[in-house]
Amino acid sequence: MTVQKSVRILGIDPGSRVTGFGIIDVCGREHFYVASGCIKTPPNAPLAERIAVIARHIREIVQQYRPHQAAVEQVFVNVNPAATLMLGQARGAALAVLVMEGLPVFEYTALQVKQAVVGKGKAAKEQVQHMVVQMLSLSGTPQSDAADGLAIALTHALRNHGLAAQLGKGQMQVKRGRFQ
Amino acid sequence: MTVQKSVRILGIDPGSRVTGFGIIDVCGREHFYVASGCIKTPPNAPLAERIAVIARHIREIVQQYRPHQAAVEQVFVNVNPAATLMLGQARGAALAVLVMEGLPVFEYTALQVKQAVVGKGKAAKEQVQHMVVQMLSLSGTPQSDAADGLAIALTHALRNHGLAAQLGKGQMQVKRGRFQ
Repeated sequence: MTVQKSVRILGIDPGSRVTGFGIIDVCGREHFYVASGCIKTPPNAPLAERIAVIARHIREIVQQYRPHQAAVEQVFVNVNPAATLMLGQARGAALAVLVMEGLPVFEYTALQVKQAVVGKGKAAKEQVQHMVVQMLSLSGTPQSDAADGLAIALTHALRNHGLAAQLGKGQMQVKRGRFQ
Repeated sequence: MTVQKSVRILGIDPGSRVTGFGIIDVCGREHFYVASGCIKTPPNAPLAERIAVIARHIREIVQQYRPHQAAVEQVFVNVNPAATLMLGQARGAALAVLVMEGLPVFEYTALQVKQAVVGKGKAAKEQVQHMVVQMLSLSGTPQSDAADGLAIALTHALRNHGLAAQLGKGQMQVKRGRFQ
């Protein structure tokens, strides 16, 4: 008898104002929707408070859903340096909480997400959302940031077939998008 | 009989490569050195790993020294956008860990640190270091990033006389450098 293990992945799309997240279960080559949503930071609050909102919510999500692995979108410099700084801080906060909660963290670029989910790097945002709905058999289209979170989780699943088999192999290394 | 309460402050100067920290005890208007040092991140490691190094070390420092409050230097955009992004992520990680550990976090600009420690906003880095040595009666000059961490902790102490008296007054709000 073969017992198929299920792997739970938390995908995170960090943003300076909204951080999207999506959780899926991967069982063999099948993907199942678990949860998704977005964390909105109060725009006029002091920075430490905004970071606190992101950090606390991600910890709550991890403690509630107990994912095995996390996939986080890589961010790039913005034309606005102040926005780049804030985006960096939001992303750093998310990564720190994931690491503190003991999750292996994988990183993917937007290009990798589009290639994995739609099949081409130049896909429009709507195409990514459409594929997320199809692949997870959702009854409606999730909010844009939540869909991005789910897309990153799906990217991790699609690029690493046989995730479950690797779960028992001790400590996995943090590395851009691939197991070591 | 008056019992003088002591307040322990952790000062942090986030950097993309080196994060400096300094811990002082404040008792009335007296300041005592507790510890200082710097956290160096492996420059060629994947970003998530560098963030993990910062986050784990700050958690260790908090758990070992049990500070009551944290003061973190505000960072500004760099001419190099990629460096700005990395600096933001390092700072976001530090803030997230402090918040997760339940510490009230205060933020100060480099200008505020120079004004508080040296008395003028245009002070040179060496003057700040000199004053840190004087104010904490150190026998030698600490490493530059460690001195910056101590300077931020001192800034918080100097700008908030009577810290100890305020400790018992319930939850303090996070706000730029001032109790609410």
